[in-house]
Amino acid sequence: MTRTGRSSGGRRGAVQPLRFDDGALLVLDQRKLPTEESWIRCESASEVAECIRGMAVRGAPAIGIAAAYGLALADDPQAAAAELRATRPTAVNLGWALDRVLRSEDRLAAAERLQAEEEAAFAAMAAHGAALFAPGDRALTHCNAGALACGGVGTAIGVISAAHRDGLVVHVWVDETRPLLQGARLTAYELAGEGIPHAVIADSAAGSLIARGEVDRIVVGADRIAANGDVANKIGTYPLAVLADRHGVPFYVAAPLSTIDGATPDGAAIPIEERAPGEVAVTSPARNPAFDVTPAELVTAIVTEAGVLEPPYESSIERVLAS
Amino acid sequence: MTRTGRSSGGRRGAVQPLRFDDGALLVLDQRKLPTEESWIRCESASEVAECIRGMAVRGAPAIGIAAAYGLALADDPQAAAAELRATRPTAVNLGWALDRVLRSEDRLAAAERLQAEEEAAFAAMAAHGAALFAPGDRALTHCNAGALACGGVGTAIGVISAAHRDGLVVHVWVDETRPLLQGARLTAYELAGEGIPHAVIADSAAGSLIARGEVDRIVVGADRIAANGDVANKIGTYPLAVLADRHGVPFYVAAPLSTIDGATPDGAAIPIEERAPGEVAVTSPARNPAFDVTPAELVTAIVTEAGVLEPPYESSIERVLAS
Repeated sequence: MTRTGRSSGGRRGAVQPLRFDDGALLVLDQRKLPTEESWIRCESASEVAECIRGMAVRGAPAIGIAAAYGLALADDPQAAAAELRATRPTAVNLGWALDRVLRSEDRLAAAERLQAEEEAAFAAMAAHGAALFAPGDRALTHCNAGALACGGVGTAIGVISAAHRDGLVVHVWVDETRPLLQGARLTAYELAGEGIPHAVIADSAAGSLIARGEVDRIVVGADRIAANGDVANKIGTYPLAVLADRHGVPFYVAAPLSTIDGATPDGAAIPIEERAPGEVAVTSPARNPAFDVTPAELVTAIVTEAGVLEPPYESSIERVLAS
Repeated sequence: MTRTGRSSGGRRGAVQPLRFDDGALLVLDQRKLPTEESWIRCESASEVAECIRGMAVRGAPAIGIAAAYGLALADDPQAAAAELRATRPTAVNLGWALDRVLRSEDRLAAAERLQAEEEAAFAAMAAHGAALFAPGDRALTHCNAGALACGGVGTAIGVISAAHRDGLVVHVWVDETRPLLQGARLTAYELAGEGIPHAVIADSAAGSLIARGEVDRIVVGADRIAANGDVANKIGTYPLAVLADRHGVPFYVAAPLSTIDGATPDGAAIPIEERAPGEVAVTSPARNPAFDVTPAELVTAIVTEAGVLEPPYESSIERVLAS
């Protein structure tokens, strides 16, 4: 595992989180963004697993794609799949991608095909989702569900960005997203790169902005969507959904079908990762659940590449997974 | 304005935020806690005003008491009162304390009397509030409403601490309270000092802990309570109240009568301070409202030194202010 770096600066298009090149997976170290653009060169599945575990690469779709390439690099595919699968428990894309590549004769070709299909899905979602917006909308998003979390145009940010290009979204509120600040560090960086007006807020400030009528729509990504439409996503998503519901603000989840887990009946069955307390507080006892579950009843719509799913989700999800 | 410091360490009682000594107000610089115990010596009203504006001293009751002493140090009381009054807009204790001291012949004696009465009020509130708890309760608090925010035993932390001594509260969840981390830095420090079991959480994690049934009661302080019971407090209080309501968790506000503003009809009339964006994000555009308003309908009870007020607050507040 070797590192190469270059400093970032100036306006740019969507920065991609992964690159397969010359027999290795290059992983952009997102923990160092936006200060530094540093790439980690992984030549084995274990090196990719370490990047996922340590969150050099994060975001449910991106860790699925990274794991697919990790498996393509493995000498012992079954052992590598087990190691990669154990890196993080909540995102279902991880297991989905591993199972897909495991079934294939040519694992590298399978990983490349999976990445291309996911990126095409994000582009389709962006178009479906943008149609939900109205002129002058001020959107709010949590964590980072942009190119860095997914590749391609991303999920929630892909939708917001398309709605901005269509002249609909005029401003984006960015939850800073403690403890790891993916919103302040990554989403703000991506929006700045695309020239979309935005402002970072403390996560706890979203409630009063919603109450004061300064938020028109909320869009987030997802780490796993259960068969009934319950959504696991970055910690802090559930409070947003409750506040949106109280104030009549639409709450959208943008996620590819690879994030929907037909085998998980509801949110209570989704494993929630508890991360190191030191990410929250270094000198005090701390608790650090990385995700929370938003019940389907609070989700206005789920934007997928196959179109916009609406309640009741049991049937709309069943239908889309079957097709 | 001069500084003296000593490093902190080990177990201790409640650390007090202010000390009047030898013709000067000594202000504990809370921005440096818990790493460093550094005192700022103020010999003029302007120096006290600078400490309040810069949040070396913070917390509605404590800034009221600090302003009272600042006025005692002034050569021109009217000009000093105007300067002190303009330091921060939301806490009503500031104007209340200044008006009380301005009416007095001996301003220093008036400031000392005000401080003593406030500290007696906090002790009375702690006893009233502790009676609301049940054995085994896990409390959650936001920001810092302890000794450092008030002097004496504090407001919300005074209540929690009394309920812990009575064998009722067994654990305290501490919202870290972005952007200035008063929870992680100050509340955790105070609870550790008193040996009360606690854990710091990201503000956005409170929602899922409440949803999972891991929070039995929420107690916060207040910066201003309107005549109808609407409560302005540190940004992030309102989302907690909404979540508590959704999950049937009692939501208490602990505040002295000096925080209740009979002249402000409701929350919409409370000025909300917008602080520097740089407190939230240094490299991105940001928005930084320092407080939010929780509507009275979400407040289970208001704990004051005169007893526990219950809805409807228009009448319970009117009655207590008149007595």
